[in-house]
Amino acid sequence: MPIDHSVTIRSAVEADMPSIVNLISALADYENLEGPNAEAIARLRKHGFGEPTYFQVLLAEKDGKAVAYAIYFFTYSTFLAQPTLYLEDLFVLPEYRSLGIGFRLMKELAKVAIERECGRLDWTVLDWNQSAIDFYDRLKAVQLKDWIVTRLTGEPLTKLAHG
Amino acid sequence: MPIDHSVTIRSAVEADMPSIVNLISALADYENLEGPNAEAIARLRKHGFGEPTYFQVLLAEKDGKAVAYAIYFFTYSTFLAQPTLYLEDLFVLPEYRSLGIGFRLMKELAKVAIERECGRLDWTVLDWNQSAIDFYDRLKAVQLKDWIVTRLTGEPLTKLAHG
Repeated sequence: MPIDHSVTIRSAVEADMPSIVNLISALADYENLEGPNAEAIARLRKHGFGEPTYFQVLLAEKDGKAVAYAIYFFTYSTFLAQPTLYLEDLFVLPEYRSLGIGFRLMKELAKVAIERECGRLDWTVLDWNQSAIDFYDRLKAVQLKDWIVTRLTGEPLTKLAHG
Repeated sequence: MPIDHSVTIRSAVEADMPSIVNLISALADYENLEGPNAEAIARLRKHGFGEPTYFQVLLAEKDGKAVAYAIYFFTYSTFLAQPTLYLEDLFVLPEYRSLGIGFRLMKELAKVAIERECGRLDWTVLDWNQSAIDFYDRLKAVQLKDWIVTRLTGEPLTKLAHG
């Protein structure tokens, strides 16, 4: 696919918060979930652009409009003794699909991973999201089906901490 | 189970590197993998105690000997707009099992998660590791079986970055 030069990718800054919130809300809507409320938006601003900074944001803009984003951070593999670039969210507005924007974001993430001496670029995908799985297959990503994501949250978490 | 007061849990410092390396090597051995070589050990020291710091270490000591460890870091949930405490490694030397040391480490991690205003404590477990799965079940952890861990590494990663 030829590169669409009207699409540019850059790291987001705090002034991009309205665009970031729009895109996070669009992803939540796509997943039939609630988007961030005012309190959550305040936390996202603090966690993305305050200290400590928990995540980084890449924005893809077409003709100056933010149409896709990636949120990532660095985790760590003690087995490799190298950091991992972990992709938390990747989303392209539905009306801007099939333009290669998702691929451009993944390529930029791979570059950041190599620059930061990461051994891996990891993420999770929902098992029903076939179009995403097909996209990742084309990048030659591997699925680690023997690893089960496990979680403590809500009452079991607070009970373990304080019980 | 009564608390064994001869077991203490604390955050590791750089001087603990020999103990940390011993425990990481013991975990690798348990998984039939290679432990860290000299170069990997140098990277672990830099990544654990340098700048940026990629991971934190909890050590459990019994009678002054490091017998178990947890390695963790903070990831982020844009859905919750809260950080997540992510547990990368949890390992108790085989001869110190069934003393409640793993539980004590999980409890300490849960406390850190709450202190840091995390909404979740996440990790992955291998689907064949039934004793670990049983342990996490007792903590009321949930398995997110519809999420597939996906990875770019090696040539597909460098090719995506530079191809």
